[in-house]
Amino acid sequence: MGKILDGKSLANLRAQKLKKEVEILKQDGINPLFCVINIGDDPASKVYVKTKKRRAQEMGIEQKIYQLPSTESEESVLNLIDKLNQDPSVHGIMVQMPTPEQINVNHLLERIDPEKDVDGLTPTNIGHLWQSDHFVEPATAIGIMKLLEHYKINVAGKNVAIIGRSNIVGKPLAALMLEKDASVSVLHSKTKSLSTYTRMADIIIVAAGQENLLTSEMVKKGAVVIDVGINRVEGHLVGDVDFKQVLSKARWITPVPGGVGPLTVELLMEQVVKLTRRAHGIK
Amino acid sequence: MGKILDGKSLANLRAQKLKKEVEILKQDGINPLFCVINIGDDPASKVYVKTKKRRAQEMGIEQKIYQLPSTESEESVLNLIDKLNQDPSVHGIMVQMPTPEQINVNHLLERIDPEKDVDGLTPTNIGHLWQSDHFVEPATAIGIMKLLEHYKINVAGKNVAIIGRSNIVGKPLAALMLEKDASVSVLHSKTKSLSTYTRMADIIIVAAGQENLLTSEMVKKGAVVIDVGINRVEGHLVGDVDFKQVLSKARWITPVPGGVGPLTVELLMEQVVKLTRRAHGIK
Repeated sequence: MGKILDGKSLANLRAQKLKKEVEILKQDGINPLFCVINIGDDPASKVYVKTKKRRAQEMGIEQKIYQLPSTESEESVLNLIDKLNQDPSVHGIMVQMPTPEQINVNHLLERIDPEKDVDGLTPTNIGHLWQSDHFVEPATAIGIMKLLEHYKINVAGKNVAIIGRSNIVGKPLAALMLEKDASVSVLHSKTKSLSTYTRMADIIIVAAGQENLLTSEMVKKGAVVIDVGINRVEGHLVGDVDFKQVLSKARWITPVPGGVGPLTVELLMEQVVKLTRRAHGIK
Repeated sequence: MGKILDGKSLANLRAQKLKKEVEILKQDGINPLFCVINIGDDPASKVYVKTKKRRAQEMGIEQKIYQLPSTESEESVLNLIDKLNQDPSVHGIMVQMPTPEQINVNHLLERIDPEKDVDGLTPTNIGHLWQSDHFVEPATAIGIMKLLEHYKINVAGKNVAIIGRSNIVGKPLAALMLEKDASVSVLHSKTKSLSTYTRMADIIIVAAGQENLLTSEMVKKGAVVIDVGINRVEGHLVGDVDFKQVLSKARWITPVPGGVGPLTVELLMEQVVKLTRRAHGIK
């Protein structure tokens, strides 16, 4: 029977430390400020933005939301980013995805000052990540690494299978896993036989957005399974893993909800604080 | 019996086209200029720099070599890069690796204007590569993709094993292979069982710098084998693949020399010309 990798508890533990750090910064007159640009009316985006805002408040971090209409032009968003880049009171900027059709999200990301890039998604910071010389990382990917570290699950020399090749999870996680000496396979919808890879994997990360994608036949006994999926099924949230079945075979497994999700939000907050410290030259 | 992926012939074929492109640019008064910074006395580096210079001359591309002493300070090299960045007659800049101890090569790469980054190794261009939105790529990696393309070897849905995780070959190649829908495993010295991966691979790329690393038992019948290694053994150049044995099992294989090497130099020249065209706003 597998044990639970409790992301929620770890997030809360880290949050306590973070809250104190923010208090100390504030005593020095430094107020971390984090700006979120949300374009359009995507309901899921609005929920995510609100969740972040609530968490930021709990941490003592100020979050400003720039809610723009779905018809906003790319140029106008770029101008907003320029303004936030230049404003020394702003420590972090992120663009909530997805963005409407008329906007090329890469153009927006490219414009964000890498020193204010809380999401670690500017080209420069992605480059730093792959060069193993980084100061900010995509939150979900680094959250997963912190979770494994917390439970003393060593990744060096392990066979790691990552299902999903998104810019925000799969690819940056591959970089972080390689940096820690894992053997990394990146798999996706065009992979012919997922199970060939997953059956030999010591650690499986599923970030595909498809319920029950990973079943117990695909998992080696004793494997570590990290479920990044969030799917809404009959009013419930479920991940990409057939949790009940896989639980009996895995050694460690993350639940959904309460696994990777809370850590993503926590790590985002930590990166706001990290960038605030950098901006003020505090180690 | 495997067939030869003739990198040398393909490089020569592409060079003919490139030469004509350069002629046309020159008729318009545009002279591609490529600057190589070589720090110290590494004998292999000097050979590589010379090889590039000869090839550039054949193409009609001017190459300037900045040969600096092994004691040169990082700051002084950064100043040189600034100067070349600002000089509109310079279209491409590259730093020959390895650099001496006192110099952090990442600092140099970070300083190169991404628009003059012929090697595709600045953080920004590495980021573009992983975002699938790139205009310049590390030469060896893109050379391998062009070789496969030339021989109509489709990578989509294929199992690709890359041995070696360098910033100049393994990692960028993983990005390009993923972009073309391959399932990609990145393996290295800490991988516990290379053959578990290589035996199920449709395409194997070996870039580890170790002679006879890939033996025929490790290769599936009918696989495509790309050898990026260059090792000097008793005065001969050999790759990382046990060529004779693997030849009988593979469907396609690159020789060493005459495989990936000539394509690397050719693609570097092509990127100088590409950056020259971009600088002058020519599509």
